[in-house]
Amino acid sequence: MFQKEIQVLDRGFVRLIDHMGSDLSVVNAARVSFGKRKEALDDGDAKLIRYLSAHEHTSPFRHTAMTFHVKAPIFVFRQWMKHRIASEFNEISGRYVEFAEDEYFVPELFRKQAKVNKQGSEGEIDAANRDRARAAYLESCRGAVAHYKELIELGVCREQARCVLPLGLYSEVYWTVSLQAVAHFIRLRSDSHAQWEIQQYAAAVRQAVEPLYPVSLAALLDLEKG
Amino acid sequence: MFQKEIQVLDRGFVRLIDHMGSDLSVVNAARVSFGKRKEALDDGDAKLIRYLSAHEHTSPFRHTAMTFHVKAPIFVFRQWMKHRIASEFNEISGRYVEFAEDEYFVPELFRKQAKVNKQGSEGEIDAANRDRARAAYLESCRGAVAHYKELIELGVCREQARCVLPLGLYSEVYWTVSLQAVAHFIRLRSDSHAQWEIQQYAAAVRQAVEPLYPVSLAALLDLEKG
Amino acid sequence: MFQKEIQVLDRGFVRLIDHMGSDLSVVNAARVSFGKRKEALDDGDAKLIRYLSAHEHTSPFRHTAMTFHVKAPIFVFRQWMKHRIASEFNEISGRYVEFAEDEYFVPELFRKQAKVNKQGSEGEIDAANRDRARAAYLESCRGAVAHYKELIELGVCREQARCVLPLGLYSEVYWTVSLQAVAHFIRLRSDSHAQWEIQQYAAAVRQAVEPLYPVSLAALLDLEKG
Amino acid sequence: MFQKEIQVLDRGFVRLIDHMGSDLSVVNAARVSFGKRKEALDDGDAKLIRYLSAHEHTSPFRHTAMTFHVKAPIFVFRQWMKHRIASEFNEISGRYVEFAEDEYFVPELFRKQAKVNKQGSEGEIDAANRDRARAAYLESCRGAVAHYKELIELGVCREQARCVLPLGLYSEVYWTVSLQAVAHFIRLRSDSHAQWEIQQYAAAVRQAVEPLYPVSLAALLDLEKG
Repeated sequence: MFQKEIQVLDRGFVRLIDHMGSDLSVVNAARVSFGKRKEALDDGDAKLIRYLSAHEHTSPFRHTAMTFHVKAPIFVFRQWMKHRIASEFNEISGRYVEFAEDEYFVPELFRKQAKVNKQGSEGEIDAANRDRARAAYLESCRGAVAHYKELIELGVCREQARCVLPLGLYSEVYWTVSLQAVAHFIRLRSDSHAQWEIQQYAAAVRQAVEPLYPVSLAALLDLEKG
Repeated sequence: MFQKEIQVLDRGFVRLIDHMGSDLSVVNAARVSFGKRKEALDDGDAKLIRYLSAHEHTSPFRHTAMTFHVKAPIFVFRQWMKHRIASEFNEISGRYVEFAEDEYFVPELFRKQAKVNKQGSEGEIDAANRDRARAAYLESCRGAVAHYKELIELGVCREQARCVLPLGLYSEVYWTVSLQAVAHFIRLRSDSHAQWEIQQYAAAVRQAVEPLYPVSLAALLDLEKG
Repeated sequence: MFQKEIQVLDRGFVRLIDHMGSDLSVVNAARVSFGKRKEALDDGDAKLIRYLSAHEHTSPFRHTAMTFHVKAPIFVFRQWMKHRIASEFNEISGRYVEFAEDEYFVPELFRKQAKVNKQGSEGEIDAANRDRARAAYLESCRGAVAHYKELIELGVCREQARCVLPLGLYSEVYWTVSLQAVAHFIRLRSDSHAQWEIQQYAAAVRQAVEPLYPVSLAALLDLEKG
Repeated sequence: MFQKEIQVLDRGFVRLIDHMGSDLSVVNAARVSFGKRKEALDDGDAKLIRYLSAHEHTSPFRHTAMTFHVKAPIFVFRQWMKHRIASEFNEISGRYVEFAEDEYFVPELFRKQAKVNKQGSEGEIDAANRDRARAAYLESCRGAVAHYKELIELGVCREQARCVLPLGLYSEVYWTVSLQAVAHFIRLRSDSHAQWEIQQYAAAVRQAVEPLYPVSLAALLDLEKG
């Protein structure tokens, strides 16, 4: 079981590296059936899965687990880690590792601050400002990386030097979750009110999970729309 | 109940803003006593608390809760949030709020990379490099803040512009935990292997908690040293 | 803060013995407001609470805590403890304590097995069977208690002797939860598909909580109905 | 992957029915290594695992999961379910299912109440009392089962009738946990202060887990002894 990386943003990815269970595990946990493990899901089982989800009998969906390897900018992980319940994260540490050059996120296009939704964005900034915005963004990131490297050369420890690095820097994480938790993540972070960048990760996670638990994922996402 | 701020680092603080329970709550939960709530802790109660902790009967310590308001640099919160179990965090959002100028952490002194411990630091950097390190650090942070403000003026949404802001930026959090979880945080983050900056927060949290649960906190910290 | 017991079933009760926070705590956590703690909830705050709930920004509701002392039959606690997330339980132990005589639940009326809903009940059993059902029920519980006492007298340890005690035996628990978790419990266990006996506990818990967080509880229960 | 049942007590069993990960998963999570999954554990990896455990870097151990099917008496499950953190349980429901006859636990020998340890037991009861203890125990269980069946025949719903069933009745559970949680369970419930009956389950769980994560389990159990 070794999925390919699903590319996300300019330098990120999502890759499922392990998992436990299937739609049948959900059914079997619900039934606590005696030693019988059916080999194929029949229509009755699919109906049971939808019933469980619709009536919030969610515990059978938690007898599953999956581990992802994710590369994403730090500001994305900061949103991601709000999904703490039934989640485990192990992240690269800036105390151990010197960050690579140019490993920061650069937006393909810069969005305007939304007028109504105080936390959102909409459309693209005025054409006249685009080149300058990109230049300012890159100057800032390059400056930060150059200063970081200078601090390291001056003998400053990594754990202090990293304070100047930008929130757009890429990091890497191992993330282990149950199917219920992953469905919750997908739904909240696919929503149009979520930041566009994390929506891309939610889509990649969905793409990785869907083949493994097709009936259960559909049932959980459906329910939550209701 | 409204504690004063305990100052931490150059611009941070820890303040306990609410709590539930006392050493008596731990005892009463352990006894599931029938309607009796003793008004004062006697020696037998203190002995019971130490027994509970020493034998890992930790659940009575979780019938407590406390909420802190904390201001700390983002890199500190990123370590802090590894303590997820039985913890709730609500953080200021860079999507809603434009960050204030000069609200970044500046070290009083720059430590050297440790030679043996790959993730640690030790002593101060060579005297010859100190002025340049400080200047480089400040240039980097000032540059990032200036670019952030320029991006905002060019119309870029806050959620993208913040990507250039440094990990040393201050943020604010409401943190709610049980006594057991806070004891675990204090112990792990007071350890000499923890980053010096988060050690200062662990000390402040301890100072805030100690008067409220003196016997229980001592018992939990003692046990964990063992 | 010391609420009176709310009587439940024939010998049970629910009593709130401590709590932290109020509707204002939810608002303040959501705002991570800077040191300001408003003293009264205004209309804008109530609107914010409803917005948070409707958009599943549930974390502010978890900066609260409350502890209940509950006396209920063991079969009720077995359902109750399925609500594990963000919950702490401490229960009387049958290894320590010898159970009191006659401390078992006796139904006021015996319900019929439901015809459609395989796990439910409906109406009352036939009038002709009621006296015998009550007699059989009481014989069984009295027999179990008498045998338990005999085993103790024969020198059998409590931890083995209790194996003969019935699931209708009363036990006592300290239960600590957040407002979000308590709202989830109330909603699922007030549902007409829940067993009638636990519905009575859900109603008592609601009665205890409502005065303390009126706006937030209403918002959470409303949302979940949606 | 389909382990055989490990027999426990007179009618119980433990069977591992699924799992995710291995000692290598722990190592890979700790390293957040970039796409490299080593195929065999070398000495350096084993050393790293012991280091992680000894320094309480426990999160890598939680990137694992396993599901057990367990049959045990209800009083055993009531102790077991205190291990809630990072655990999922799905249990047979007495509301759905009519309990089988004679499916209750009968001790091979009856232990005496301990003199010093108020919650413990020691040795066997006096020889003169053994036959009567066994007879009283069986009378009680048989009586309860007979009354349960009578109540069902009188039309009483299963959810009420089960109130007369004894705590020694067998039930079945699906249990999903991480390696860290399972190690904690094994250690606490293998302790000589734990009830003898649950010690047998802890030994069976250990036997099921050990071949899958030999280095990690040893490291976690060692640490916790310290």
